[in-house]
Amino acid sequence: MLVLLDQTRLPAEEVELVCTDAPALVEAIRSLAVRGAPLLGIAGAYGVALAAARGFDVAEAAGALEGARPTAVNLSAGVRRAWAAHQAALVKTGDPTAAATAALAAARALHREDAEASRRMAAHGLALLDELLPGGGHRVLTHCNSGSLVSGGEGTAFAVALAAHREGRLRRLWVDETRPLLQGARLTAYEAARTGMAYTLLTDNAAGSLFAAGEVDAVLIGADRIAADGSVANKVGSYPLAVLARYHHVPFIVVAPVTTVDPDTPDGASIEVEQRAGFEVTEVTAPQVSATGAGGGIPVAPLGTQAYNPAFDVTPPELVTAIVTEEGAVSPVTAEALAELCARSRQVATS
Amino acid sequence: MLVLLDQTRLPAEEVELVCTDAPALVEAIRSLAVRGAPLLGIAGAYGVALAAARGFDVAEAAGALEGARPTAVNLSAGVRRAWAAHQAALVKTGDPTAAATAALAAARALHREDAEASRRMAAHGLALLDELLPGGGHRVLTHCNSGSLVSGGEGTAFAVALAAHREGRLRRLWVDETRPLLQGARLTAYEAARTGMAYTLLTDNAAGSLFAAGEVDAVLIGADRIAADGSVANKVGSYPLAVLARYHHVPFIVVAPVTTVDPDTPDGASIEVEQRAGFEVTEVTAPQVSATGAGGGIPVAPLGTQAYNPAFDVTPPELVTAIVTEEGAVSPVTAEALAELCARSRQVATS
Repeated sequence: MLVLLDQTRLPAEEVELVCTDAPALVEAIRSLAVRGAPLLGIAGAYGVALAAARGFDVAEAAGALEGARPTAVNLSAGVRRAWAAHQAALVKTGDPTAAATAALAAARALHREDAEASRRMAAHGLALLDELLPGGGHRVLTHCNSGSLVSGGEGTAFAVALAAHREGRLRRLWVDETRPLLQGARLTAYEAARTGMAYTLLTDNAAGSLFAAGEVDAVLIGADRIAADGSVANKVGSYPLAVLARYHHVPFIVVAPVTTVDPDTPDGASIEVEQRAGFEVTEVTAPQVSATGAGGGIPVAPLGTQAYNPAFDVTPPELVTAIVTEEGAVSPVTAEALAELCARSRQVATS
Repeated sequence: MLVLLDQTRLPAEEVELVCTDAPALVEAIRSLAVRGAPLLGIAGAYGVALAAARGFDVAEAAGALEGARPTAVNLSAGVRRAWAAHQAALVKTGDPTAAATAALAAARALHREDAEASRRMAAHGLALLDELLPGGGHRVLTHCNSGSLVSGGEGTAFAVALAAHREGRLRRLWVDETRPLLQGARLTAYEAARTGMAYTLLTDNAAGSLFAAGEVDAVLIGADRIAADGSVANKVGSYPLAVLARYHHVPFIVVAPVTTVDPDTPDGASIEVEQRAGFEVTEVTAPQVSATGAGGGIPVAPLGTQAYNPAFDVTPPELVTAIVTEEGAVSPVTAEALAELCARSRQVATS
C-alpha cells in the first residue's frame, strides 16, 4: 500500500491517505490529494509498483495513472520508468514477483534521485540569485507550491528560497495565494511557517502593486512541463507574473528537474492545458466546513455561473530569464541550450 | 432612515440593511455593505441629510462619513455637497428643519445626476468601443463590480458592457472574480445573470491565459479616484490587467464620472491606498456559513500568517487607453485633457 499526506486537508489537518490499489491512487492524483510535478512522478512510479505487487494488470494501471492528469510530464515519465523496469525484469526472469520487485526498486531510485535533484537545484538556483542580485537581501515572489510537498526532497523553486533563507540572504518570501485551490495560502504558507522564514501572503492580483512599489527582486516558480523551445507550463497565474516581471525588469526564474523538459512537445502551443471543473471557481472549498455546492464547496457566485478554469498557463521562453535544473541553469532560454542540457543529463544518467 | 441592499450577503441573499443614524452608515461603508465609488457619494450625501433630519451634529457626522474609507473621492464629494447645502440653508434661514430639507434635496439631486451620468457614460463608452473595435462582437474583460450596485443608475464600466449587450454587440463579458472579497463572482456575476448577457467567471490570475489566447478585445473598469495626471486608483488587480493589456495591444478603458477626478491629487504617488485587514486574505468569508476565524471567515492559511492586502492599486496614465466620463472620453490621457474636461463639466454644472 501507498501512504500519502492528503494535501487537500492542509493546513487545517495533517491526514494520511492510504491507497491500496492503483485506482485509489488515480483518484488521489485527480483530486489533488497528491500533487506537484516531481512528486507526481514518484507517486506514479510507486503506483505501478503497487499494481505489480498486488498482481493487477500493470499495463492497465500504468495507462490509468498516466492519464490521471494530462499536463505534468513527470507523472508520465515516472510511470513509464517503473513500468519499463517491470517489463524488463518480467522478460528476463519470467517471474512476476521479481518484476514487481524491479518496479519498486525503480520507484525508490526515482525517489532518491529526486531528493538529490532538489539539493542540486537549490544550490544552482541560489548561485544564480546571488549573481543576478549582488546586493543580497532577496525579496522573492513565488506562486503555487513547489516545496517538499511536491518532491522527494525539498522541492524546486521553494528549495531555492529555503537555501537563501538558510544562508541568511532571503529578506522575504512573497506568497501568491494561488486561486482557485489556494495552494500558496494552504501549502506554501504552511511550509514557509515551518522553516521560520519571513513570508507574507497576498492575493494573486496584489502582486502588481508589489512590482510597482519595487518590492520584488525576483520571481521563482516551478514547472509542470517545459517544451523543447523553452515554453513553460506552470500553475495558472504564472504567465501574468512573467509579463509583470518583464515590464518591471525583474528576473523570472523557473526551477524544475530536467525530466520536466519534454523533447516531444515542440512548443508552447503543443502543450495540452488541463481544464478543470468550474465549481473550483464558483465555489470555495474549505475542508473543515460542510457545504452545499455541487462541488462540495461553498457557492460564491450565482447558481449556474459558467467558469473558465484552466489549471495551467504557458509562458513563452522570451519571458523566462533562466531555467534552473539539477544540471545547472540555462540562460538565455533557447531550444539549443535546453537540448544540450538534456543531452548532458542523459550522459550522466547512463555513465 | 436609510435603507440599503447589504452587498456582503449577495448573491446568496438579498437582505436590506436599515441605517437610522450616521454611525450605522459609517459601519455599513467600512464593512462594504454599501460600496462602489459613485454609490458611496450618494450614500454619504444621504448620511448627512439623515444626521440633519435626526438633529445630530452635522459637522461631526460629515467628518465620520468622509473618513470611513480613504481612497474613494466620491464619498468625500457627496458628503461635502450635502453638508454645504445644509450650511447654506442654515445661514440663510436659521431654521434647522429647512437646512435638513436642503441637505436631503442635495442628496436627491446627486442621486438623479448620477443616474443620468450612467446613461451618458454608457453611450460615450459604447461609441468608443465601436470606434476601437470596428468588427463588433466585443469580448470585454472587467474587474470588480461597476454596475447598478455602485451607482444611482446602471453604473460605470458595467453600464458600457450592458449598452453593448442591448445593441447586440457584446459577445462575452469575462468577469474577474476579484479576490479577496469576490465582488466579481458575487456581484458582477449576479448583475450579469439578471441582464441575460453571455458572461464567464474566472480567477483573477487566469486573465493572462485569455489575453494570450486573443480572447480579450478590451478591458473596461471603473475607478475610485483619478489623479490630476490621469493615474487611476481602482480595485487591486486593475494594474496587472493594464500591464497585460499593454503587452497584448488591447485597449484598457476606465469609465468613471467626472467627480472621480480629484484635481487636488497631483499624481499616482499622492493617492492614499487603503490597506485592509489581513484576515480578508487568510480567511474566506461566506455569509451563509458560520465560521471560526478571527475575521469571522474560514481560515485558509496557517494561523498567524501575515498578509499584504491593499484594497486598490494605481495604474499610470501611460497604460490607460481612454478615460470615459459623462462629458465624453479623454484619449490619450494627459493632465491637460483631463483638466479641460473637468472645466467643461463645471461650466455645464453652473450654467
